[in-house]
Amino acid sequence: MAKSNRVALGLDFGTESVRAILVGLDGVERASAVVKYRHGQITQTLPTTGQTLPHDFAFQHPADWIDGAGKAVRKAMRTAKLSADDVVGIGVDFTSCTMLPALRDGTPLCQVHPFDEQMFAWPKLWKHHGAQKQTDRINDVARERKEKWLDTYGGTIGLEWFFPKILETLERAPKVYDAAEVWVEAGDWFVWRLVGCKAEDLPRSTCQAGYKAMWSAKTGYPSREFFAALHPKMANVVSDKMPGRMLAPGEVAGGLCAEMAKRLGLRETTPVSAATIDAHAGVPGAGAAGAGTLVMVMGTSSCHMLNATEGTVVPGVAGVVDGGILPGYFGYETGQAAVGDAFAWLRQTVGQRDFNQLAAGAAELPPGADGVLCMDWFNGCRTPLMDGSLRGAFTGLSLNHGPHHLYRALLEASAFGVRWIVDLLAEHGVPVRDYVATGGLPHHNPLLVQVYADVLGKPISVHPALHGPAIGAAILGALVAGKAVTGFKSPADAIRTMADPKKHGGSKIVKPRRAATRAYDDVYGRYRTLADQLA
Amino acid sequence: MAKSNRVALGLDFGTESVRAILVGLDGVERASAVVKYRHGQITQTLPTTGQTLPHDFAFQHPADWIDGAGKAVRKAMRTAKLSADDVVGIGVDFTSCTMLPALRDGTPLCQVHPFDEQMFAWPKLWKHHGAQKQTDRINDVARERKEKWLDTYGGTIGLEWFFPKILETLERAPKVYDAAEVWVEAGDWFVWRLVGCKAEDLPRSTCQAGYKAMWSAKTGYPSREFFAALHPKMANVVSDKMPGRMLAPGEVAGGLCAEMAKRLGLRETTPVSAATIDAHAGVPGAGAAGAGTLVMVMGTSSCHMLNATEGTVVPGVAGVVDGGILPGYFGYETGQAAVGDAFAWLRQTVGQRDFNQLAAGAAELPPGADGVLCMDWFNGCRTPLMDGSLRGAFTGLSLNHGPHHLYRALLEASAFGVRWIVDLLAEHGVPVRDYVATGGLPHHNPLLVQVYADVLGKPISVHPALHGPAIGAAILGALVAGKAVTGFKSPADAIRTMADPKKHGGSKIVKPRRAATRAYDDVYGRYRTLADQLA
Repeated sequence: MAKSNRVALGLDFGTESVRAILVGLDGVERASAVVKYRHGQITQTLPTTGQTLPHDFAFQHPADWIDGAGKAVRKAMRTAKLSADDVVGIGVDFTSCTMLPALRDGTPLCQVHPFDEQMFAWPKLWKHHGAQKQTDRINDVARERKEKWLDTYGGTIGLEWFFPKILETLERAPKVYDAAEVWVEAGDWFVWRLVGCKAEDLPRSTCQAGYKAMWSAKTGYPSREFFAALHPKMANVVSDKMPGRMLAPGEVAGGLCAEMAKRLGLRETTPVSAATIDAHAGVPGAGAAGAGTLVMVMGTSSCHMLNATEGTVVPGVAGVVDGGILPGYFGYETGQAAVGDAFAWLRQTVGQRDFNQLAAGAAELPPGADGVLCMDWFNGCRTPLMDGSLRGAFTGLSLNHGPHHLYRALLEASAFGVRWIVDLLAEHGVPVRDYVATGGLPHHNPLLVQVYADVLGKPISVHPALHGPAIGAAILGALVAGKAVTGFKSPADAIRTMADPKKHGGSKIVKPRRAATRAYDDVYGRYRTLADQLA
Repeated sequence: MAKSNRVALGLDFGTESVRAILVGLDGVERASAVVKYRHGQITQTLPTTGQTLPHDFAFQHPADWIDGAGKAVRKAMRTAKLSADDVVGIGVDFTSCTMLPALRDGTPLCQVHPFDEQMFAWPKLWKHHGAQKQTDRINDVARERKEKWLDTYGGTIGLEWFFPKILETLERAPKVYDAAEVWVEAGDWFVWRLVGCKAEDLPRSTCQAGYKAMWSAKTGYPSREFFAALHPKMANVVSDKMPGRMLAPGEVAGGLCAEMAKRLGLRETTPVSAATIDAHAGVPGAGAAGAGTLVMVMGTSSCHMLNATEGTVVPGVAGVVDGGILPGYFGYETGQAAVGDAFAWLRQTVGQRDFNQLAAGAAELPPGADGVLCMDWFNGCRTPLMDGSLRGAFTGLSLNHGPHHLYRALLEASAFGVRWIVDLLAEHGVPVRDYVATGGLPHHNPLLVQVYADVLGKPISVHPALHGPAIGAAILGALVAGKAVTGFKSPADAIRTMADPKKHGGSKIVKPRRAATRAYDDVYGRYRTLADQLA
């Protein structure tokens, strides 16, 4: 292979689509292709039976992941005019906790008759909110038993996590639980398919496990006794139904198997990295290789990730994992459950085809949206309240307000949500020094970034890469190719080279406007008061 | 004139249009015609200068009242094929407090140069909300001075009333105040024009004065000392700028003058009644001639009127006036500031052309709108909080909710507002025994009436007349024609005959559904909690 053509492949599995990106080892993007999932988000009816789903359910179809990835990789390779030999390694990031039950041979239970007609056999998308009761129970039991790991998650585990979703199936569809031989994160499942190994070697990501399944390198998963206290049948869930080995993102999961090599049009044995969470991939993807930079991965939902030199308990912060984002740092994960999703919901609710009119109108309004205040909990509150049952609101409405007032108030609420997180981190001795925005949203929505900068009173650097997490995944692909192939001296070296903003078009710096920042202090106070009232 | 052709004319001045109705003395509607005001509600720019109006301002154009009435009467007369001699009397109802400054010859100040270019010279529509500061001051001064009349209005006078609007002009445009020779309710102004009398004989309605200008038959207007305490220049506002005589609705204001007879195509000297408030006209217009019937006049905003045998102080009830609605009863006026207006606002905000889709979707939802809760204060809260600065809200919003959830929640909030009023009256010993709905809304919006019946847990009788207040105005026209002409033995006799539901197509009874009523108890509790939080 020609040295200058060497690329790493990043596969970025989102809520609506999968993206394949080919990033040169010099940091130059060679091609990128996105393929929408044929079934999209499955929220209305089950594809096999037409059964109506409860309103807080959300599934995905595993065939969409396989088919989508195949099409996206082939399209990107064609565009880049590269051969299979040019691809040095593969990284995968995935929404999380998106998870599924499978057989030990890897077949998703939803593709095995008659379970294909059982809704609880289907992969639950991260935003599936059917497990509220089970989440409450897990939190209650953990508090009663004074489980130490609870502190790591700010004292509360989340509605969207791994074990609530399992317990929900156990309680609501025990036969599905019995038939499930393997419970697995979707990202890990996909890597498992890529390397084609046996279930006992299933490469499970420490990132997903650390942030979504109460796992830590020191103590492993919660104890048998804890699971037994939840439900007798769950006692041995880890030993019986969670086979595999733990690997950090950037560690080698295996080589690409023949079947998937054929599907993707790539070379068999190409090294594959353990998976990572999409948002967490955004940190290297945004070129952030050190401590104190809040990387705001903004999309359907937002994850705000921070590396710090110390691991501290911060109430309400979803997870603090040693090496959870990058080796050598404590990775803090915080998040907002509805961001782009909420904007799309509003656009649709007010009957607009696109955001042009809303954005133009909202930009004309002063900070505070003429008195309209929004609470951005349209999909619950992740950080700091960790309560998926909370709901959004608009207050201060009069007959003189239009859709653009609602939209501006929503953008502002989203920014207030970030400010709350940053305030909380600072109060607990974890300072944020600078801000990088990545993900699709900051590029499509300049008004949003300006509102964020104004509310936070700090400049925001918008990383030029349109697909930060995908680049982060490609960087993981480069890491597993090995020093001998890539020449990178360290993960930080790979990150700084492959995600160098200059290579991706240069960062855009959005500065705060002082008068707006002053004006927002008062509105933020009202936002916090409203949060107290509604929580 | 042929006896069977004898009709009374009702002129009903609304927020967007004027209606002329011809009702036979036998109760049969002969014709009705509505004419939209050319300038509509003036809320954006001043017609003369194009000056942008503050967002809480709302004016009307006096020429629209005169032109609109002329066209509507002529159209109704043509339709009914009646001659001028067939009209035995004229009644007028008007939105209130819609008011204006004028010269002593009756010319509106906004039609006198250069005042036509001054926004404070224009008639302020009832919903004009520019006088918040002045309302606060009037309430403060009244409380300090322990003014007795304050009790009659539930302890608070309203943002939309007569004297706040005058004080606003005095403070913000003193030259306009100085130039104003007469301050007058728009309904009284129109009757003044009809009879063409001198300023000192200006027929002022005890209804408007009693409910909106702190007047009572026993004590008259507030004292000179009170007005002086508000503002030195206001001390003599009553003696200097409010000439005229007080007349109850149904008392003769005079005979139709030559000029207006020509404009309307009617006979000179036709007797004209003193004006009444549109909502209050709805009580006789709905055939309610006794105590204990809550007449819900539902339209742009709603007035809920109750006659009772005793006059009691009820905190938050806008007005208790002896004979304010019908002779022999204490009339209780309560209201909701945004009803049809709020529905229209929502329809527009969610980008729908009509209510069909919203109503169909909302009808499918269970009580409680899947968790969406609304506070119906989009134009402030009239009863019981009497605070025009309060604002509307939606809470409980998730990404799964659509516009029909917002709409149902809004209908429910409107019903909860009525329940709050009824609870309040009952707590103070003023029971509501039955419910009559009138105004345009109950006819156009069957879902709304069902929600009201369910929330109140009582049947609601929808009076068949599409234009209750207009019929009420026509009844006033019959009263001033005199017993010799009409044969009616009493006002109650006239009401029972002319507004007999059977003559207008028969009442529709909407019954409560027990399961819904039970379900709403909980939602109503949450509504009241939200009200406490937002107020």
